[in-house]
Amino acid sequence: MSEDKATRGKFAIGVDIGGTKVAAGLVQADGTIVHQLRAPMQANGEAAAGLSAVTTAIDAVLAAGNFPRTEICGIGVCSPGPLDPESGVVINPPNLRCWRNFPLAQEIARHLDLPVQVDNDGNAAALAEAIWGAGRGHKIVFYSCIGTGIGTGIVFDEKIYHGRTGAAGEGGHVSIDYRGPRCGCGKPGCIEALASGPAIARRAREMLASGPDRPTNLLALAEGNPDRITSEMVGQAFASGDKVAAAVLQETADLLAFWLGNMVDLLDPCVIILGGGVAAMLKPFFDRIRDRLPVCCVNPRSREVPILMARYGADSGIAGGAALCLRRCVAEG
Amino acid sequence: MSEDKATRGKFAIGVDIGGTKVAAGLVQADGTIVHQLRAPMQANGEAAAGLSAVTTAIDAVLAAGNFPRTEICGIGVCSPGPLDPESGVVINPPNLRCWRNFPLAQEIARHLDLPVQVDNDGNAAALAEAIWGAGRGHKIVFYSCIGTGIGTGIVFDEKIYHGRTGAAGEGGHVSIDYRGPRCGCGKPGCIEALASGPAIARRAREMLASGPDRPTNLLALAEGNPDRITSEMVGQAFASGDKVAAAVLQETADLLAFWLGNMVDLLDPCVIILGGGVAAMLKPFFDRIRDRLPVCCVNPRSREVPILMARYGADSGIAGGAALCLRRCVAEG
Repeated sequence: MSEDKATRGKFAIGVDIGGTKVAAGLVQADGTIVHQLRAPMQANGEAAAGLSAVTTAIDAVLAAGNFPRTEICGIGVCSPGPLDPESGVVINPPNLRCWRNFPLAQEIARHLDLPVQVDNDGNAAALAEAIWGAGRGHKIVFYSCIGTGIGTGIVFDEKIYHGRTGAAGEGGHVSIDYRGPRCGCGKPGCIEALASGPAIARRAREMLASGPDRPTNLLALAEGNPDRITSEMVGQAFASGDKVAAAVLQETADLLAFWLGNMVDLLDPCVIILGGGVAAMLKPFFDRIRDRLPVCCVNPRSREVPILMARYGADSGIAGGAALCLRRCVAEG
Repeated sequence: MSEDKATRGKFAIGVDIGGTKVAAGLVQADGTIVHQLRAPMQANGEAAAGLSAVTTAIDAVLAAGNFPRTEICGIGVCSPGPLDPESGVVINPPNLRCWRNFPLAQEIARHLDLPVQVDNDGNAAALAEAIWGAGRGHKIVFYSCIGTGIGTGIVFDEKIYHGRTGAAGEGGHVSIDYRGPRCGCGKPGCIEALASGPAIARRAREMLASGPDRPTNLLALAEGNPDRITSEMVGQAFASGDKVAAAVLQETADLLAFWLGNMVDLLDPCVIILGGGVAAMLKPFFDRIRDRLPVCCVNPRSREVPILMARYGADSGIAGGAALCLRRCVAEG
C-alpha cells in the first residue's frame, strides 16, 4: 500500500439532500461525524441552483475541515429517489423538482474533483448502520427509517442490496392492506401510509373524532384544533402518560410488527434496525413488537431477531452518504 | 480434473416428498429428467417407516437407471418445512408427522452412501428454474409455485437465498391484508390464503352464494353441491367460456399482481417465474398481471420484468431436488 493510499480515505464527506435543506458533514473512517452543517436546498428552481446549493454546502464543510484535501476519499450523497445508484443519475424525485434525469454524481465530481457516490437515504443509512451502527457484525441487515415517510434498506455482507435496477429495498411501499388507505405513492395500504408520522397524526385525529373513552391531552396540545395534531404531539402526550396517545402508538407498533413479520418471512434477516423520529417515539414498544413477531410470520426462530434502535438519528443521511464512499475507499485501499 | 471427477456428476437423484406420496427421478446435468417414479409416502407413522418409503423410491430409481453408481453425484431432497437446509434436519412439518427434528439428509446418506442435500420445495424448484428453466441467465430470480399452497424461492446468482436460519423466501406467507381471511399458518391475509387453489374455490363459492349476475356452469360441474367446487373446476369452467369463473380468476390474478408489486418493491428481481397448477390456470392473465404491476409498486421499471411460466410443472420437486446437488457437484467438479 502506498503512503498516499494509506492516507487517503481517512475522511469522507456525507451529504443529505432533502426537499428543504441540505446537510453535509465530515465523517471519519470509524463512522464518527466530526463536523457538520445545514443549509437551505433550492429544490424547485433551476437544476444549476439545486446543484449549487449542494456544492456550496460541501465547500463549506471542506473549508471548515482545515486539513489536506488528500485525506478526503470521496463524497457520498443521499438523495430522494428514484435514482440510479450505479450512474448517480437522479430520475424524478417528487420533492426535488429541480432535477429530472440529472447526472448528480457526475456534476458534483466535476465541481470538486473527488469520487462521488449517490444513493437513496434508506439504502445509505442502512449501510452506515451495518458497518458502524447497530448492525455491526450482522450478515443480513434490515433497516427502516420511520419518520414523515418510511424508507428501508437491505444490506448483505456490508453491501447494499440494489436489485436489478437499483430500486430494491423499498420496504416502505410494501403494503399490508390492499384495500387500505392510499399512500402518497398511489398504492393502498403501504406501511408508509399506516405507520409514518402523518399516519400517526391521522389515527390520533380519528380516535379523537370517534369520542375516546379516556381523557386525553391531545386536543389541548393542538390548541383545540384536531387538524393541527402532529405525531410529535402524540409522542409528547404519550410521554406524559396520555392513554389515547398510548393507544395510537400501540396500534402503530402492531402494524409495524405485522409488516416486519412479512420482512422476516421473506428475508430472514440477522437484525432489524429502526431509526427516525417515529422509531424513537416507539422505543417503549420494541419489546412488544418482538413479542408479536412470532404470530406475524411463519419463521420458527423470529423471536431471536434483535430489534434495535439505529445508532444514527437525524444524522443518518450524513453517515449514510459517507458510508457509501468510505466503504469503497477502505475496500480499495 | 481427474477422470473420476469428470465422470461423477453426470446425474443426480431428485426426490420430492409430500404428505401422501414420494416422487423420485434421475436427472441429467442439463436438467433433463430421464426417468421417474412415484410411490406412497408413510407420513404419519414411525420415523423409520417414513424414511424407508423414501429410500425405497430412491433404490428403485437407481435400479432402473442401469449404469455405474459412480455416475450419480448425489441425492437432492425436497421436503415440506420447516427444515434446516444446512444440516438437513427436518424440524416439524405439519403434514409429515413421522418426523420431528429428524436428520433426514444424514439418514438417507447412511443408507445410500451418497452426498445428500435437503431443502424445501419452493427453494429447490426456484433453483431448478434459475439454472435450467425460465430463469436461466437471470441474476435475481423470484419463483412462486401456486397450487394447494403458495411456495416461493429467491435465487441470487444461481444460489438459493436462505437468510439467517434457512427460513427465508417464505413469500407465500407475505400478507397483503392484515385484517384478511386467516391462512393455514395462522396469519391473516397471506397470499396463500387469497390466491391458492382452495382460496379460488372459496371465492367461487362466495360468488355463487351472492347470486352471480351472469349464468355459470360451476354449480353443474360440482354436481349441484357448492361445497364440492374445486379450483380445477373453476379452471375447467373458464376454459369453456364461463364468465363467473373468469371473474374469479381475474380477481385472483389482481391479488397476485398486488403481492408481486410488494416483491418487486423489496427485491427488484430480474425475472418472476410462476409455476404450479394455479399458475397454469392463470396463464391467460399473465399479461394483465404485468400491465397492473406499475400501479402495484413504486419501481419505475417494473413493466420490464418478465413474468414467465415455469419450465417444470408437476416435476418441479424432482428437478429441484436434483438441482440442489447437481449444482454443487458441477461447481465442485
